[in-house]
Amino acid sequence: MERIAVLAHGQFPDRAKTAVGLLRYGDREVVAVLDRDRAGERVAEAVPDVQDAPVYRDCEALVDDRGPDVADTLVIGVAPIGGGFESSWRPDVRTALGAGWSVEAGLHYRLGDDDEFATLAAEHGCELRDVREPPVDLTVAEGVADEVGPRVVLTVGTDCSVGKMTTAMELVDAARERGVDARAVPTGQTGIMVEGWGIAVDRAVSDFANGAVERLVRAGAGERPRDRPGGEPLPALDEPDLLVVEGQGSIVHPAYSAVTSGLLHGAMPDALVLCHAAGREAVHGYEDTPLPAPGEYVDLYESLAAPVGSTAVVAGSLNTAGLEPGAARTAVEEFAAAIDAPATDPIRHGAGDLVEAVL
Amino acid sequence: MERIAVLAHGQFPDRAKTAVGLLRYGDREVVAVLDRDRAGERVAEAVPDVQDAPVYRDCEALVDDRGPDVADTLVIGVAPIGGGFESSWRPDVRTALGAGWSVEAGLHYRLGDDDEFATLAAEHGCELRDVREPPVDLTVAEGVADEVGPRVVLTVGTDCSVGKMTTAMELVDAARERGVDARAVPTGQTGIMVEGWGIAVDRAVSDFANGAVERLVRAGAGERPRDRPGGEPLPALDEPDLLVVEGQGSIVHPAYSAVTSGLLHGAMPDALVLCHAAGREAVHGYEDTPLPAPGEYVDLYESLAAPVGSTAVVAGSLNTAGLEPGAARTAVEEFAAAIDAPATDPIRHGAGDLVEAVL
Repeated sequence: MERIAVLAHGQFPDRAKTAVGLLRYGDREVVAVLDRDRAGERVAEAVPDVQDAPVYRDCEALVDDRGPDVADTLVIGVAPIGGGFESSWRPDVRTALGAGWSVEAGLHYRLGDDDEFATLAAEHGCELRDVREPPVDLTVAEGVADEVGPRVVLTVGTDCSVGKMTTAMELVDAARERGVDARAVPTGQTGIMVEGWGIAVDRAVSDFANGAVERLVRAGAGERPRDRPGGEPLPALDEPDLLVVEGQGSIVHPAYSAVTSGLLHGAMPDALVLCHAAGREAVHGYEDTPLPAPGEYVDLYESLAAPVGSTAVVAGSLNTAGLEPGAARTAVEEFAAAIDAPATDPIRHGAGDLVEAVL
Repeated sequence: MERIAVLAHGQFPDRAKTAVGLLRYGDREVVAVLDRDRAGERVAEAVPDVQDAPVYRDCEALVDDRGPDVADTLVIGVAPIGGGFESSWRPDVRTALGAGWSVEAGLHYRLGDDDEFATLAAEHGCELRDVREPPVDLTVAEGVADEVGPRVVLTVGTDCSVGKMTTAMELVDAARERGVDARAVPTGQTGIMVEGWGIAVDRAVSDFANGAVERLVRAGAGERPRDRPGGEPLPALDEPDLLVVEGQGSIVHPAYSAVTSGLLHGAMPDALVLCHAAGREAVHGYEDTPLPAPGEYVDLYESLAAPVGSTAVVAGSLNTAGLEPGAARTAVEEFAAAIDAPATDPIRHGAGDLVEAVL
C-alpha cells in the first residue's frame, strides 16, 4: 500500500478539502499531515471520523523524526483559489524529492513545468504527478452521455465547498452497502487522487469541458478505456448499475459556472442531488453575491438541463457541520421542504435515504 | 495595409464564418480566397455585400499567378468542430511560409507546435500566429465586470452559427454612426482576427473562462492594458460609452454551454441581444436535440444571469438569409413577438433598432 504525507499548511482541516478527502475516502495510508500551525497535534483531534495520523511542522521535521523511508509520496492537500503553488511549500517538495518520494498535486501550476522540481525528480528518480492535467486528446461533446447503460446521478451545488464530492462518495458507499453496483466518477483533483482515475474538468479548455464529462461518464459506464491523466489508458471498466458523477462549483457561481454547465450538459444525468451548506448565505469568497433560495436552484438546474436532457432534483444533501444535533435535524427538514425532495446530511445521518431517492 | 489570403477549402461561404467575417468586417485587404471547389469564381458571386476578391484553387496557384509578393499573410478562414488542422491544408501553409508570409490561425491545433511549420517559419523569418491561444496568466473571475463604466451588452444565441458575432459588429457600427462611442469585445477567433485583440474564451481552461471574459470587459472599458494572444499587452484603451461583447455558443448547447456560461457570468452584462437563425429547429450538428422556443431562451438567460448580475433580453437579432423579403419581415415580426422585444435582421434591415433598444 502506498504511504503518503499530505501537505495542508495553515488550512487543516476546514480549508483542506483534498487532505480531508484523502483521509476519509482514500485507500492509501496517510503517515502524516503537514501543517505548521498544528504541529504536534493528531488528525483525530480535528476530524474524529477519518483515518488518524500525526501532524508535523513540515516535511523536514517528518523525515528527521521518522526517516526518509516513512512515506512514498508527498501529496499537496490544499487547493488555493486560482490553483497556484505557494512558495512556502517549496522546501517541503525539495525535502520529499530528496528523500526519493514522488510528489502529487492537483494545482493549475504544473510541478512538471517547474525547473527545480523537474531536475530534482530526475536526479532522485521520482515521479511528479499533476493529476489536474487533462488528457491531451479531449474534444467536443457528442451529446450522447444519456445513452450509457447505468443510471447516472450528478451532485450539484448551491456553491463551492458545500459537499458535492463528499455526497458522491457517501452515496456510492451507501449504495454498495445495499448491494447496488455503484461507481463514483471523479471530476476534480481530490476525487482523482482518491479513485486513481478521472479528469479535472475545471482544467479542460472550456470548448471541451462538456466533452471531458461525457468521456468520463462513458468510461465510468465501461464503454471505453478510462483515461488517467498523464498516463496511458487503463483497461476498460465493467458496467455498473449506478454512476455518481462528482459535481463542481454552482451554475450561478461568478467564477466557476462554466465548469458546472459543462458537467450538467456533458453528463446528461438521470437525476440530480442538490448539495448545500447549512447557514451559507453568500457565495464563498464573493460575499456581495447572495445565494438564491434552495428552491430556485432546483428550477435553475432543471430548466437549464431540460433542453439537452431532462432531469430532476430527486434529493438534497445538507452539510450541517457545526450545528447541534437538534438544529441539524431542523435544518435538514427545512432544506427538504425548500427543495420539495427528501434530504439528509450524509456524514451525520448517513446516505441511505439518498440511495432510495436516486434509484 | 496588411494583405491576406484566406483559406476556406470546400467551405466558402456558408461554412467559412471566419473568412466571411474577415471580408465583411476586417480592415486588412483580402487578396484572395482559397477554395479548391470554387477556383476561378469571385467572392462577389457568393457574397455580394463584402469586399470582393478572386477565389484560387490553392496557395500555389495564387503564387504562380501573382507572385510571392501578392500577400503578407495566409489566414486559416475555417473552424472545423474540434478545431483540428486538416492535413489537406498543409501544402498551402508550406507554400505561404516558403513565400515569406506569416500564417495566422485560430484553431485548437497550434501552428507553433507543428515541427514542420516551426522549422519553415524560422528558415523564412515568418510569424506563426495562433490567435486562439489565451494569455498564460488567466485566473478566476472576481465578479466585478459590472463595475466598469460603459454600458455592457452581450449577444447571446439560441445556437451556434446564428449571428452573435455579426450582430455585435453591426451593433457597434450602427452605434458609431449615431455618435455613440462603441467598442466590440472579441471573444472568438474571427473577432480577434478582425479587431486585432481579444481572447478566445473557448480555449481558456474552464476554471478561468469567466475570468477571461471579465478581463476582456475590463480591458475593453479601458481599465487595464488589453491582452494580445501571444504578445505583450498593448497600451490601455480609452473608455467608450458602449461595449458589445461577442457571444459564443448557447446556454443549452450539448457541447458549448460551458463557454456560454463563462460569458454570461463573466461579462455581467447590462443587457442581452438574443440571436437566432430563422427556421433553425434543432441544434446545429446535434439534430436530435430540438431548440427550445425563443421565449424560453429569454427566461433561461435572464434567470441564470440574475443571481450574479441582473440583466434582460432587450432586443432580438434574426438571421433571415435565404428567405424572401416578405417572409423575412414576417419572421422578424414573429421573433419579436416570441421574445417580447424589438427585433431585426441587422444584415438585411440594419442594426439601428438594436442601438435604440440597448442604450
